[in-house]
Amino acid sequence: MTTAVLSHLSQLRSALRLDADGAAGGLQVLSTDPAELEIVRADKSGHASSAAPIGIVHARSIDDVQATLRVANALGIPVVTRGAGTGLAGGAIAGAGELVLSTLRMNRVLEISVDDELAVVEPGVLNGDLNAQLVPHGLWFAPDPASRAISTIGGNIATNAGGLLCAKYGVTREAVLGLKIVTAAGDLLSLGHRTVKGVTGFDLTALLIGSEGTLGVIVEATVKLRPLPAGPVATIGAYFETVEQAARASAVITASRLKPAIMEILDARALDAIDAYLGLALGGRGAYLLVQFDGLGAPQEADQAVPIIRSLGGDATLSRDPEEGERLFAIRRSFHPAMERQGTVLIEDVSVPRSRLPAMFAAVTDIERRFDVTIATVAHAGDGNLHPNFVFPGSEVPPKVWEAADELFRTCLRLGGTLTGEHGVGLLKRRWLREELGDVQFELQHKIKRLFDPNDILNPGKVF
Amino acid sequence: MTTAVLSHLSQLRSALRLDADGAAGGLQVLSTDPAELEIVRADKSGHASSAAPIGIVHARSIDDVQATLRVANALGIPVVTRGAGTGLAGGAIAGAGELVLSTLRMNRVLEISVDDELAVVEPGVLNGDLNAQLVPHGLWFAPDPASRAISTIGGNIATNAGGLLCAKYGVTREAVLGLKIVTAAGDLLSLGHRTVKGVTGFDLTALLIGSEGTLGVIVEATVKLRPLPAGPVATIGAYFETVEQAARASAVITASRLKPAIMEILDARALDAIDAYLGLALGGRGAYLLVQFDGLGAPQEADQAVPIIRSLGGDATLSRDPEEGERLFAIRRSFHPAMERQGTVLIEDVSVPRSRLPAMFAAVTDIERRFDVTIATVAHAGDGNLHPNFVFPGSEVPPKVWEAADELFRTCLRLGGTLTGEHGVGLLKRRWLREELGDVQFELQHKIKRLFDPNDILNPGKVF
Repeated sequence: MTTAVLSHLSQLRSALRLDADGAAGGLQVLSTDPAELEIVRADKSGHASSAAPIGIVHARSIDDVQATLRVANALGIPVVTRGAGTGLAGGAIAGAGELVLSTLRMNRVLEISVDDELAVVEPGVLNGDLNAQLVPHGLWFAPDPASRAISTIGGNIATNAGGLLCAKYGVTREAVLGLKIVTAAGDLLSLGHRTVKGVTGFDLTALLIGSEGTLGVIVEATVKLRPLPAGPVATIGAYFETVEQAARASAVITASRLKPAIMEILDARALDAIDAYLGLALGGRGAYLLVQFDGLGAPQEADQAVPIIRSLGGDATLSRDPEEGERLFAIRRSFHPAMERQGTVLIEDVSVPRSRLPAMFAAVTDIERRFDVTIATVAHAGDGNLHPNFVFPGSEVPPKVWEAADELFRTCLRLGGTLTGEHGVGLLKRRWLREELGDVQFELQHKIKRLFDPNDILNPGKVF
Repeated sequence: MTTAVLSHLSQLRSALRLDADGAAGGLQVLSTDPAELEIVRADKSGHASSAAPIGIVHARSIDDVQATLRVANALGIPVVTRGAGTGLAGGAIAGAGELVLSTLRMNRVLEISVDDELAVVEPGVLNGDLNAQLVPHGLWFAPDPASRAISTIGGNIATNAGGLLCAKYGVTREAVLGLKIVTAAGDLLSLGHRTVKGVTGFDLTALLIGSEGTLGVIVEATVKLRPLPAGPVATIGAYFETVEQAARASAVITASRLKPAIMEILDARALDAIDAYLGLALGGRGAYLLVQFDGLGAPQEADQAVPIIRSLGGDATLSRDPEEGERLFAIRRSFHPAMERQGTVLIEDVSVPRSRLPAMFAAVTDIERRFDVTIATVAHAGDGNLHPNFVFPGSEVPPKVWEAADELFRTCLRLGGTLTGEHGVGLLKRRWLREELGDVQFELQHKIKRLFDPNDILNPGKVF
């Protein structure tokens, strides 16, 4: 370690009132353990930084976050805020000279208000843990990234996480009423409201949601809860000869003004992989459409959806039995583990207007052929969000995969879409951001970043 | 007019390619007609500026907006963007030396996409007009300010308008996917997406929503549509002896995980006024609770709500007949016309966490007595948003009304609420804004304003 780094760590220990080992009361707060530093070089994107960061602060409290940022801001130490590290865009990856600020230990549910249908949580609470605590109250925090069992609410908010239920229940932004954040200078700000409505000044809560650690550190969130949907779900699983047919069926379901909670499409290559993984005989099927309705209207809605699916060539099974429904769902749930058995996976995240879903699927097939790459795709069809999964051998992303991804992004923008529906920009999408935003907006966003963080210490090099 | 004003108007005419009368092709684009200028001194808040502005640009297109702002920015002319002028916080009031930029003529619905459940509209489209065009498609733009028949979508967005349906369907922010805005410098920016999901960079769409004309001019909006709720509504009207009882019933309905589309409370003084207006015999009743359920689950939900209401002292009538339901609703709809017959009305707009609704109602009664003022209150009970209506004779707001309003705001903040739920800050709430935001956030918001508008030409003196 250089003298500068040693001095930085020493000042952090002092500001956090730690002993010479970085501990307090037997608890390691500032860690320089090489094994720990190795972990935070990567996230779930498969990407890793080229060197380890200088240390990790395991914040215990808002005070710790403020103290850390005051020192970092004064000394110009770049700070990478990190929850569970489940991100898929490299946003929480830390490299040489950087300090990781982990919020994982700030994991208390501070309040559940049944009357006001809200919860106040620290950022390190896992999405699944909050939901487990809410079940007895008949309540539910709707954002449902596929990682919900292992991802933190702070991370969900920092990336404006999506998931399977967004077409009906919205993204994370719709479920956050207010935030406490610590600014780069170490100030504590309360943004937003405890109320359903509120229009006092600019909506900084929304500005922070999805800002990927570049504007401030989320230290507390007041989140909106919903009543758990009443009654059993109704689930439909349907096979099609082509993925375009499945995409058309999903479009007609939406256009029929039905509102599934979940509507997912798996393409043929995804089914092949699941086939190998589960030992099923799905092979040779062109696509799978999974549709699930919830709430009091579920049976009626499902009864309307089945004839639509069949009229468009789908071989549909409908079940109102939860166990049978879960079996229809299991095919979708097996997608990610099945992919991991195929090789190294780069998960992309393009989003197009729903009506362009068939065109985007066709483009993926075309790109796969032209660039000689393997792409298996799952789509949240209700909201037009596709996850083309590039699969390749070895641990390095081959150049042709990046070239194919580049073509994928440009196609998506041409179709009126966006290059990341729910994973964020992080490190991996930076090079296309300016293209989507345009120069004037890109500069304006950059100026907002500088306004919040004049010394550029908050997750520098990410997003922009 | 001063020489400077004459020169400013001349440069505007030139930039907009108008003749010496401010017209083009027989259409008046830049107007200095005193009668028109008189109208834009006021909005629906009852407040008016002390002098007329210098002129009104009736923008026909985005080009007109850009040309106007370029001139205004270069010359330092303050610009007040205005839709239909139905605001209740003075946000669109224009005074001496200011230029009004009206978007009322930009009133085309540019696109309705049934497949993508979205519409693209110019800012001057009336909320009610868009909804009338959507009915044949079975679609619906959910934001429903009480002014929806006469207010523009641009204005709804600029104030993040609420309404009666927000507890179930959200505020305007939840219904906007993307915006085109013109910046103070005259640049055209496309913010947001046509897609349901999208996390590329900071959410400037949300930042602009509710910014009350201080950050940019909204020239186009891509809004999210919903399927019209299926089936007939189920409506409950219930009288209570006290408003606290009605508030408790509404809280228990929410806590029972029911989700009314509408849940409104009128207090005794409101009922007295409606009594006089409609010639009914409501007098002496303590409060009225109106609850309406929609969607496929409406009958079941209403059947669960009635016993709750009765067990808490409510004299409840349930109807699934639309006409009978409309009669139960008519009492609520008569509130504003009934109030206007009582005298001059100042409509306030505080919002508290739902559970504090009984406490806030009690505080209103107490303030009415202590300050010797008359307050009739209607509340959107599902989201804790109260509109205490101060009534007084004459056209000037008496000092004791302002003192009472001041106490009202402070009480609301103490109860964890916000000083404006849905009307905005405008001119009338400025003096309390810093108190709610705190100094550090207030300064940060002000810096954002300066970043977007360095010459302070966009609605200066409003909000901040």
